[in-house]
Amino acid sequence: MASEYPGAGYTVSIRLSYDNGRRKLANITTNIADADGDITSVELVRTHKGRITRDITLNAFNEEHAIVLTKRLRKLKGVRVVAVSDPNFAVHLGGKIALRSRTPVKNHRDLAQVYTPGVGRVSSYIAKNKESVWSLTSKANTVAVVSDGTAVLGLGDIGPEAAMPVMEGKAILFKELGQVDAWPICLDTKDPDEIVDTVKHLAPGFGGINLEDISAPRCFYIEDRLKEELDIPIFHDDQHGTAVVVLAALINALKVTDRDIGSIKAIQTGAGASGVATAKMLMSAGLKDITIFDRKGAIHKDRDDLQNNEAKLWAAENTNPGNIVGSPRDALDGADLFLGLSGPGVIESEDLEKMNQDAIVFALANPDPEVSPEEAHKYVRIVATGRSDYPNQINNALCFPGLFRGVLDVRATTINEEMKIAAAQALADTVPNRDLSDEYIIPSIFNNKVATNVAKAVSDVALKTGVARRSRSHSGEHFPNLSRIKI
Amino acid sequence: MASEYPGAGYTVSIRLSYDNGRRKLANITTNIADADGDITSVELVRTHKGRITRDITLNAFNEEHAIVLTKRLRKLKGVRVVAVSDPNFAVHLGGKIALRSRTPVKNHRDLAQVYTPGVGRVSSYIAKNKESVWSLTSKANTVAVVSDGTAVLGLGDIGPEAAMPVMEGKAILFKELGQVDAWPICLDTKDPDEIVDTVKHLAPGFGGINLEDISAPRCFYIEDRLKEELDIPIFHDDQHGTAVVVLAALINALKVTDRDIGSIKAIQTGAGASGVATAKMLMSAGLKDITIFDRKGAIHKDRDDLQNNEAKLWAAENTNPGNIVGSPRDALDGADLFLGLSGPGVIESEDLEKMNQDAIVFALANPDPEVSPEEAHKYVRIVATGRSDYPNQINNALCFPGLFRGVLDVRATTINEEMKIAAAQALADTVPNRDLSDEYIIPSIFNNKVATNVAKAVSDVALKTGVARRSRSHSGEHFPNLSRIKI
Repeated sequence: MASEYPGAGYTVSIRLSYDNGRRKLANITTNIADADGDITSVELVRTHKGRITRDITLNAFNEEHAIVLTKRLRKLKGVRVVAVSDPNFAVHLGGKIALRSRTPVKNHRDLAQVYTPGVGRVSSYIAKNKESVWSLTSKANTVAVVSDGTAVLGLGDIGPEAAMPVMEGKAILFKELGQVDAWPICLDTKDPDEIVDTVKHLAPGFGGINLEDISAPRCFYIEDRLKEELDIPIFHDDQHGTAVVVLAALINALKVTDRDIGSIKAIQTGAGASGVATAKMLMSAGLKDITIFDRKGAIHKDRDDLQNNEAKLWAAENTNPGNIVGSPRDALDGADLFLGLSGPGVIESEDLEKMNQDAIVFALANPDPEVSPEEAHKYVRIVATGRSDYPNQINNALCFPGLFRGVLDVRATTINEEMKIAAAQALADTVPNRDLSDEYIIPSIFNNKVATNVAKAVSDVALKTGVARRSRSHSGEHFPNLSRIKI
Repeated sequence: MASEYPGAGYTVSIRLSYDNGRRKLANITTNIADADGDITSVELVRTHKGRITRDITLNAFNEEHAIVLTKRLRKLKGVRVVAVSDPNFAVHLGGKIALRSRTPVKNHRDLAQVYTPGVGRVSSYIAKNKESVWSLTSKANTVAVVSDGTAVLGLGDIGPEAAMPVMEGKAILFKELGQVDAWPICLDTKDPDEIVDTVKHLAPGFGGINLEDISAPRCFYIEDRLKEELDIPIFHDDQHGTAVVVLAALINALKVTDRDIGSIKAIQTGAGASGVATAKMLMSAGLKDITIFDRKGAIHKDRDDLQNNEAKLWAAENTNPGNIVGSPRDALDGADLFLGLSGPGVIESEDLEKMNQDAIVFALANPDPEVSPEEAHKYVRIVATGRSDYPNQINNALCFPGLFRGVLDVRATTINEEMKIAAAQALADTVPNRDLSDEYIIPSIFNNKVATNVAKAVSDVALKTGVARRSRSHSGEHFPNLSRIKI
């Protein structure tokens, strides 16, 4: 029954109906507690002729545990289980996003300004001054979150409809953390060229494109073409968001353990979208010795099964300086960093014993890490995961809201390597030196300095590298002087 | 200087700086009044060392008048004109729409529900139960407002960027009047097949598609294909929104003048998107005698210049029972209804004298009607325009918010002819019989019964005609019982 990760929680609401009486509720809650259910709320639904209906919401370990608990309650005398439901679904009913009007329309005067005839003057102006679309429409604060639903979370190719809740979740994180308006666009095509064409066609109203959960290697082609053919930033978050946050965590882990990125040996499992992008970024930041493993073992120059995968071919050419072959388990000998971007079961926790002193483990598979943090801590000094219920959570939400905030603030045309590295450094620097510790190498996503710091760093570098359309200190927009619009 | 339509107003803000002193402001405002400027507000911007800066907002007749007023103020001793600006632009700065999160994300528990790991259970459920995308995402309340910017207002092909303010205006009317979340998608392509493909690809997250300001005849092909290939409602508002509101106005105009639609003779100028759709709809509702005029004159069976325009070919086959040839001016003899869906100058007001008693004129060109209402009233009984500064405003905003509200309430798969006629009837019926008059044949768009009535009629007929996915009285969504989702 006991889960390896009891904290993760599988929340269920169980609706019970029973004849009210002395100690009835106590009996129910005792039974739940005895079976390791962790009650978070007990709510009254209704009472009718001495019969009472309550919703009991509790954390179970997992689905099986929830079923066991339900069966146990069903056996209680006089207790009827009316329904067992998932509170996650309640939050999703009707969707998580809506449109907000930024200007009231309460009378004909309002209407004449925001719609015809007043809007015609604004449209005419943009037609003549195309760049003014950035100041006179929502473009400058709006991002399309584009997915084809082929690589959603750990669920794989579940299609555009099933991808929607994830993209809406992303959209509200964009809003809450970065004040960016991000609308989900889930595509009913998996053809890379059709995806490129669709995004190009819908681009005029958006200030940036966040690609999301598109499977490799298609995602590389799609991103490359869009970057080349559009003049707004294209960012595949699975790749670069992960890379930025991993680099930030590594910067601080090395600071805590007083080492230099150029002198460590890294072993990475996972050569998918996030894997290759992260390796590239760490190498941009100075990492020299990294070996990447896919399901078939170490990627090296002599592998003859990589023809159709440019990303892995790149890895074969540019990583694995020691020409390691075989499994990651063997390769951990003498390593300083284990970076898991794959899934559970690729190594055993005991394998970590062979790593160097002060070893670092980033086990980022979600929800089940490559190695359990409890086990890893027996052998290594610093452990980070993708989960919120352990210290050192490496979460993409630490990057994309602030990154796009910075990009939009200066209306950047692209997101270059320098901007991503600046984002990682700003994210790392958000934890003050005096607070850094083995268990605090990366800030919380609810630290409200995160997005601000990342945004500032990103827009600074955008300006410095010449990809900004305007300065951040731009003193507010002025609506066009009639003399300038030549009435 | 005097405009034909002084009420329409061309609003400007003039920023003036002058040495403060007795009667200075009075002198300024008097000068403006003397030159027919209509001041709506005088605001203090700042005072500094006895010098005062004010924004004077006023209604001028038109652009030229605004320039004349500005020049007059420039000549005043000690007065400096700092800037002349358009308040319409201020309303548009930063765009008119934003995203609203419907659920808070303030801590890790919230995050675990709306994003990973909780969202994974919702996505998995949708993957297995595809129709649940309607209840567990924003799809069921979201419409894409799609334009390629080729026929924007009276401005023509001004491109997707310049179309954005209009589509955003539409979006906020959808929200304010119909509680529908409508996101603008302005397309960087004019190719009809590319437009169709793009809309098909982005459709999964949307419960309906509102096509907007796409030029004829491309709009017919695009709408037809999308209707055929998608299972959500497709509605080209320029065509059908106009048709619904015109029919509503005509129903009440005929009620006021005690006539039957089957017995009147109608003359229509304009054979574009809205023209042909409106004629079709009026004929669905019983109109028999209608003749449509394009720039070359009456459309009739013997015209040999209509080959490439299916809509006009349809009109040649199905309208003009009297085989009228020539200009609309001649054809007005003995007509009961003049319906202008074209532009100013197609007839002279004196031509209306030849119409039957109790004649009806709908002069809907915007901002300048086919004939001025003041002039028309000399000859006919009922006059309607597209403008808010005259009685009887025929405005598409009377239709689309309520229509889509009704469609989304029952998750309709399409918008059929019966639903559109029901919308028109509901719109007409919103004006109680006792209130009907020559000057009140159509409700105000700020009448909050409009959208409700239209929505109810539309969803009723959707249910009746078998195109609804669920009943409107659906007693709220229930999130899936775990026993049903087979944990």
